[in-house]
Amino acid sequence: MEKKGRARQAGSGSLMESLGGSDREGHSGTQSSHRLLAYSDALISIIATVMILPVAHTKVEDNELRESVQLLLSTKICVYLMTFLIVTVAWAAHIRLFQVIVRIDDCLALLNLVSISQFSLMATFPENILGILLFCGCVMVIGVIQSVIVLYAFSQPFLLSEQIQMSENRTFYKHHILKVIMRVPLMCFLASIVSFVVFQLSYVLLAIIIFLPYISRCVEWCHKKVMGPVEESPDSVLFYTYLPNEPLSKERVEAFSDGVYAIVATLLILDICEDNVPDVAVVQQRFGGSLVAALQDYGPEYLAYFGSFVTVGLLWFVHHSLFLHVTKATRFMSLLNTFSLAFVGGLPLAYQLTHEFPRNSQNELEAIQISCVIIFFAGIFQLAIWVVALYNEQETLHPYVRYGGREHVFMLAKLALYPCVALGTFFLTCILSKFSAPIFHLMEITVPFAFLVLRLLVRVGLALIRLIFCPDRPDLRSVVDDDESTVPFNALVT
Amino acid sequence: MEKKGRARQAGSGSLMESLGGSDREGHSGTQSSHRLLAYSDALISIIATVMILPVAHTKVEDNELRESVQLLLSTKICVYLMTFLIVTVAWAAHIRLFQVIVRIDDCLALLNLVSISQFSLMATFPENILGILLFCGCVMVIGVIQSVIVLYAFSQPFLLSEQIQMSENRTFYKHHILKVIMRVPLMCFLASIVSFVVFQLSYVLLAIIIFLPYISRCVEWCHKKVMGPVEESPDSVLFYTYLPNEPLSKERVEAFSDGVYAIVATLLILDICEDNVPDVAVVQQRFGGSLVAALQDYGPEYLAYFGSFVTVGLLWFVHHSLFLHVTKATRFMSLLNTFSLAFVGGLPLAYQLTHEFPRNSQNELEAIQISCVIIFFAGIFQLAIWVVALYNEQETLHPYVRYGGREHVFMLAKLALYPCVALGTFFLTCILSKFSAPIFHLMEITVPFAFLVLRLLVRVGLALIRLIFCPDRPDLRSVVDDDESTVPFNALVT
Repeated sequence: MEKKGRARQAGSGSLMESLGGSDREGHSGTQSSHRLLAYSDALISIIATVMILPVAHTKVEDNELRESVQLLLSTKICVYLMTFLIVTVAWAAHIRLFQVIVRIDDCLALLNLVSISQFSLMATFPENILGILLFCGCVMVIGVIQSVIVLYAFSQPFLLSEQIQMSENRTFYKHHILKVIMRVPLMCFLASIVSFVVFQLSYVLLAIIIFLPYISRCVEWCHKKVMGPVEESPDSVLFYTYLPNEPLSKERVEAFSDGVYAIVATLLILDICEDNVPDVAVVQQRFGGSLVAALQDYGPEYLAYFGSFVTVGLLWFVHHSLFLHVTKATRFMSLLNTFSLAFVGGLPLAYQLTHEFPRNSQNELEAIQISCVIIFFAGIFQLAIWVVALYNEQETLHPYVRYGGREHVFMLAKLALYPCVALGTFFLTCILSKFSAPIFHLMEITVPFAFLVLRLLVRVGLALIRLIFCPDRPDLRSVVDDDESTVPFNALVT
Repeated sequence: MEKKGRARQAGSGSLMESLGGSDREGHSGTQSSHRLLAYSDALISIIATVMILPVAHTKVEDNELRESVQLLLSTKICVYLMTFLIVTVAWAAHIRLFQVIVRIDDCLALLNLVSISQFSLMATFPENILGILLFCGCVMVIGVIQSVIVLYAFSQPFLLSEQIQMSENRTFYKHHILKVIMRVPLMCFLASIVSFVVFQLSYVLLAIIIFLPYISRCVEWCHKKVMGPVEESPDSVLFYTYLPNEPLSKERVEAFSDGVYAIVATLLILDICEDNVPDVAVVQQRFGGSLVAALQDYGPEYLAYFGSFVTVGLLWFVHHSLFLHVTKATRFMSLLNTFSLAFVGGLPLAYQLTHEFPRNSQNELEAIQISCVIIFFAGIFQLAIWVVALYNEQETLHPYVRYGGREHVFMLAKLALYPCVALGTFFLTCILSKFSAPIFHLMEITVPFAFLVLRLLVRVGLALIRLIFCPDRPDLRSVVDDDESTVPFNALVT
């Protein structure tokens, strides 16, 4: 990670030089790739997330939610999850590619835009054979364009990262990278051929793509166990290793997550925006011109919207707090993050379901339960990222939040809050038949205050423990007191 | 700008310290605000842009495009432009606020999320009285929350930028900032009261908000001319000056623009994604199972999509090239950028119109003309940013692209390309009655190659000029030759 940082610094340094007018190097078109990558992240995250729309807009007939949800679950949700994950696999490939290529010129920028335009075509929801063909076609075209990018970059070595630029066997790297890049398009080619014969089998092939690196690693490991250890080549590969702890750019993981959270929050408002502002004529007819009555009628919609928005916002907040304390994002953490984001992407579905049914019906309770399941998994995978980071805390975490650090307990409490609340609500709906969607949304809205209360409770709890177990060390207590004095607002609110 | 940069550096420096475990300062919750701001930018830009949807999804009846477009133009497009601009005004206020507050803690992060949730409610399209009330209500709530943020930040001075932290009359700053922030909500309050009496007048009041700083500056200037110069207070205000050359964070202007371009590109795909992948049953019935025939039928849609996507991508590319060479974004440049983005946001409308009508009809030509107008204005405002930057080139531009710099001519050519192409196409549609939407979209797709040709043409042209006017200076020619040798790919493509 440090090396990466240095490489990027060197990159921007030479950018400044070249912009400063030094003609020494003679390639004026070279640019830092930062903004291009931010734009790519934004686009890819939006594309991955809008694929929830065909699921969320499925018309659910009244009094048969259970069957139709089972139907949904068996097909559309699975397809959504699969395509979301494949898009993120392609995105991870994009990250790795631009960890090798650290500078760009106009040509690379245009090539990258072409490959992004293919990404956006992947948003065609592949629920039938044409969809699958289109989807696979896009992945194949992306693979070809990425190969062209690699060939172009290796023909102009000053675009590459310094490690490769300095390396002697650049050709070896080139072949290795091309080989890795072409794996996914080949699988898709296979899947598209299979789709003509056995329609469902191609989904299985596509699903394999997601876990391809893990499978190939397993096979390698078994091979080693059986055949005995093979000697590594002397100049072992530093990039594209597919080890679970291979570092991925933390910035880009954050940018991608931000995109997903932002577009989910916006998908919620889209429905209100188009349908739910009553017209003047309607107000006159139905409510006798009374605006208050009209708004009251639309009240539950707005409550549902606010509840869902608060949930998205706070899940983002937890994610933000978590990654603030993470120093390095590994491949495995990024996979867990992707799972969490896939469930966050399901929140528009939860929103649609919870405000669609008449109050106090069995359907309403089931819709709330589905929401709880979605929120629970979104939260539990965030917690999993944290647990994985703790396993390797020397490398991946700031000392502040490591085991025994000052913020450790509070971080854990923050991460555990949403899974606990979701689980609790789920069991409440089983016990209380009076539980309704408005109560659920009100609960969602009150959770932010729980965060503030939590902070205070953890502080007080820690202070008490310290007071009981080591009452003779006033320095610790004074630190805690000091903290308390700087959070008067917390004290005011709670 | 330099001061700003230093302040931020200092901020992140102290963040590192505090994360490094130094308890010296005693406020552990302090965080760098970078990611919070990036997330806010993404959300606000998406919200501003989705307001085009009610316009784009207006059903246009066949053979009456001209009248219905006039109807559209008179109401919906104006309302769209106005709300887009007001959202960006609120966003600019958000930038200024967080140029003063450079560090955040959990409380500020949550408060900011609440204010963003209000932003998203602004996406309710205010085409009737309830919409206006809701819109104004949101702006007022945002104003109140921003005031709370200011009060909270000033109560904890270590969150503020160093300039204010060191300043002696912090209270003066606080009052000044609060006064400026409360201006917009007050105007909205007025507008919402007026909307009960004269419905249309409230639009005028809202429109005034956009130009409020310019109007107040005019009034001040007139006042000075009439009354004679007033002595400035000794400690003149450095923030919230509303001078046209007040710097705005360049990073955030870029992030906001990226968000708009990304969501526009995605709005294009949404329609294809939901409607245009033919079902297996449909393919069997209508095309006798032939996939190729089915895809041919949907061909024009995909062509229209690709054409529009390429246009969005290249407008982003031009924007990216421009801001790569800009060192400081001023208030006036940001206003021009906003105008350009407002027209970019209109591209989904152009896309809807151009693939909706039967081929070779008068309507089709008019739809193409509307597209040309939108693209023309999006491009011309980008050019205007560049012209404004040139007026003050010592401060705002890298020496590379200043008048006489090496990249100057090429930059100008890049910026002038889209306005010229749009203007040319507009006149072509007037002359040629055979001009059709597919030709238009094919033209859009070929423009990227024009960029590459352009680069070569400018180079060759400059080399020729130098050869003719100063043939005795071989050093210049060698530099140009050197450049040529590093762009073999360009040469290959063209």
